[in-house]
Amino acid sequence: MKDWPLPRRFRFAGDRCGIRGNDPRKDLALLMSEIPAAAAGVFTQNRVCAAPVQVSRQRVPAGDARAIIICSGNANACTGPQGLRDALRMTDLTAELLGCQPRQVLVCSTGIIGRLLPMDRVEAGIRQLVPQLREDSRALQAAAEAILTTDSRTKIVARQLSLSGQEIRLLGLAKGAAMIRPQMATMLAFVLTDAAIAPADLDRALRQAVDRSFHCISVDAHTSTNDTVLTLANAAAGSEPVVGEKLEQFTAALTEVCAALAREIVADAEGASHLITLEILGLPSESDARQIARTIAASPLVKTAIFGADPNWGRILSAAGYAGVPFAEQEVSLWIGDWLVYDRGQPCPFDTPTVANYLRQNREVNIRLQFRSGSASCRFWTSDLTYDYVRLNAEYTT
Amino acid sequence: MKDWPLPRRFRFAGDRCGIRGNDPRKDLALLMSEIPAAAAGVFTQNRVCAAPVQVSRQRVPAGDARAIIICSGNANACTGPQGLRDALRMTDLTAELLGCQPRQVLVCSTGIIGRLLPMDRVEAGIRQLVPQLREDSRALQAAAEAILTTDSRTKIVARQLSLSGQEIRLLGLAKGAAMIRPQMATMLAFVLTDAAIAPADLDRALRQAVDRSFHCISVDAHTSTNDTVLTLANAAAGSEPVVGEKLEQFTAALTEVCAALAREIVADAEGASHLITLEILGLPSESDARQIARTIAASPLVKTAIFGADPNWGRILSAAGYAGVPFAEQEVSLWIGDWLVYDRGQPCPFDTPTVANYLRQNREVNIRLQFRSGSASCRFWTSDLTYDYVRLNAEYTT
Repeated sequence: MKDWPLPRRFRFAGDRCGIRGNDPRKDLALLMSEIPAAAAGVFTQNRVCAAPVQVSRQRVPAGDARAIIICSGNANACTGPQGLRDALRMTDLTAELLGCQPRQVLVCSTGIIGRLLPMDRVEAGIRQLVPQLREDSRALQAAAEAILTTDSRTKIVARQLSLSGQEIRLLGLAKGAAMIRPQMATMLAFVLTDAAIAPADLDRALRQAVDRSFHCISVDAHTSTNDTVLTLANAAAGSEPVVGEKLEQFTAALTEVCAALAREIVADAEGASHLITLEILGLPSESDARQIARTIAASPLVKTAIFGADPNWGRILSAAGYAGVPFAEQEVSLWIGDWLVYDRGQPCPFDTPTVANYLRQNREVNIRLQFRSGSASCRFWTSDLTYDYVRLNAEYTT
Repeated sequence: MKDWPLPRRFRFAGDRCGIRGNDPRKDLALLMSEIPAAAAGVFTQNRVCAAPVQVSRQRVPAGDARAIIICSGNANACTGPQGLRDALRMTDLTAELLGCQPRQVLVCSTGIIGRLLPMDRVEAGIRQLVPQLREDSRALQAAAEAILTTDSRTKIVARQLSLSGQEIRLLGLAKGAAMIRPQMATMLAFVLTDAAIAPADLDRALRQAVDRSFHCISVDAHTSTNDTVLTLANAAAGSEPVVGEKLEQFTAALTEVCAALAREIVADAEGASHLITLEILGLPSESDARQIARTIAASPLVKTAIFGADPNWGRILSAAGYAGVPFAEQEVSLWIGDWLVYDRGQPCPFDTPTVANYLRQNREVNIRLQFRSGSASCRFWTSDLTYDYVRLNAEYTT
């Protein structure tokens, strides 16, 4: 097991309480700071949002958060007033056992939509979990496992950063948007750091990081009811408050951690055989670039072409064309890998078998679209659409 | 062969000129009015639009159109200035042979993107086609075949309408958005009528009809570079100009024809095993209802669930939630077939095997979402996402 450079004064625990019945997988995780931490969060924009999202959203940004309690196997979404009571009970009980206020505890869930949590098991699980909190990589590994649903592996990313001679640590963990079981669809990510940073600054830094990471991925273009990114900063590194230029450095490191986790999520997408990186360049704004990337990434025609190793640039270009961002064909060039296939309004001759081979032989492939109407750009990650995706999402019935 | 009630003084022809090489399928169609006709059109909103779209868009609405020349197997899209010259040449030659002006001829193409038309064959084909123009169902059938690409069958719809004792005929033909071969993606539809109607009124009627028909379907949410709906009204029925209340009746009949063609297109979608009708009710505006329907129809999770006969209502509701239309969970109810599965913010107990059987045993299935924030509604058609869809769109390489 890898020995991670853990941010100071954070503890971890992960265990099984039986949310999925007899399934042996872990389903309950706790992330805890020994001292009050600044906290920020970014949540799903779905109008239908899960009970834990409704609870956590009201509690950040904050200056004195202590813990995040997470369950997997049940999303606690579309569960009405009882679902809300259950999410609140999870934070109440965790707070009681940690000796803090309920508002200092955040909560997340991921899994099946529309079923009530088995609260007797969840409550017993939380009671067992709290004494297991440890400040080591083994406990971190258990927590990272306990938040997974259909993921094939844990997703942990660590970064260190020196600010005025003081070493700051960031640690991220996530679960993916992949889905096998009916009604599962959630991305959860957590970044813990021992930096000292004001809640408002942490909030701003997180929003910027999420814009360039989790907002730049798409597996199936289906926004979940539970998507949540939370960050805690407990100042345990002992540094001065992170402000000014240091705040920019911190934000860059936070963005790196989020982008690495986002990329891991797409790389582990259900049934995917390709991790596709879209580079969109030369537009008036980043949001224009993201809008074009998101539209290409959502096209089943583009995704099946990549699965079939078909250098089908017409599908990519025509998807860009209906993204709602103005451009003229004459100002666009398109590369698949290193091959220029379309240049300023004209198809380019290229050796089709060579480019098809590039798509066939690489799991990670690149597509680049160059516009000429500005200087903003984005990098976006997506997966292909395969038989396995259809199988995994069609075969399992409720 | 069916004997269609043809609108008066229209002629048809369909033949093969070899656009697809040795493929034996017909690839060239001509629809002609013996007398000048009012014409209107609705075109793709894709920024990347094919040369024939650029040409036809400038020529409607018009008061004196004579013909529509259509080729299949090549989209003439992303083909630069030469593509534009080729589309113009198709209308020039057709006009010359019919003895009219080029601006009286409209042009459409559908097929592979990014390749130049084999104009020697197309020109020879047009010269052979014009003498074949006939006013009978056999010629109509040939034309309806010649516009197809990956469709499994022709799509023809006829309606008759009595306005002040005068019988008006409408005839629609279409090809679908299905795709097997690389870079094909187009929906074309044509409605011919012998009604007498001013170009501006015809334009308005067509826009309204398209809004409630072709704008209410989605196979894979990928807007083509070539989508075109054209209508010609040649007044040959001898009636008074259609205005006022009669215009409303005419628009309703035109909408019926367009909706029947739209439904045929989805029913024939590549690889589809279900035709799904979405009824979205109780919203402030029709465009809100369409936006929610379009988002549900684009979700691979919803589409794979229907393929798998899984009554997975959480996927449907959560897709509605990210459509960008405001609503509260407490005001939504959801039916799959006749089964109420979610009512005003709460899951409803239902017999899962019964509803799964409904999805398994019917090729045509219904999903109804009732909101409570207005009185507008829409009906929307989509298909499911199957192994065959992935196979057909991934296996064939350029």
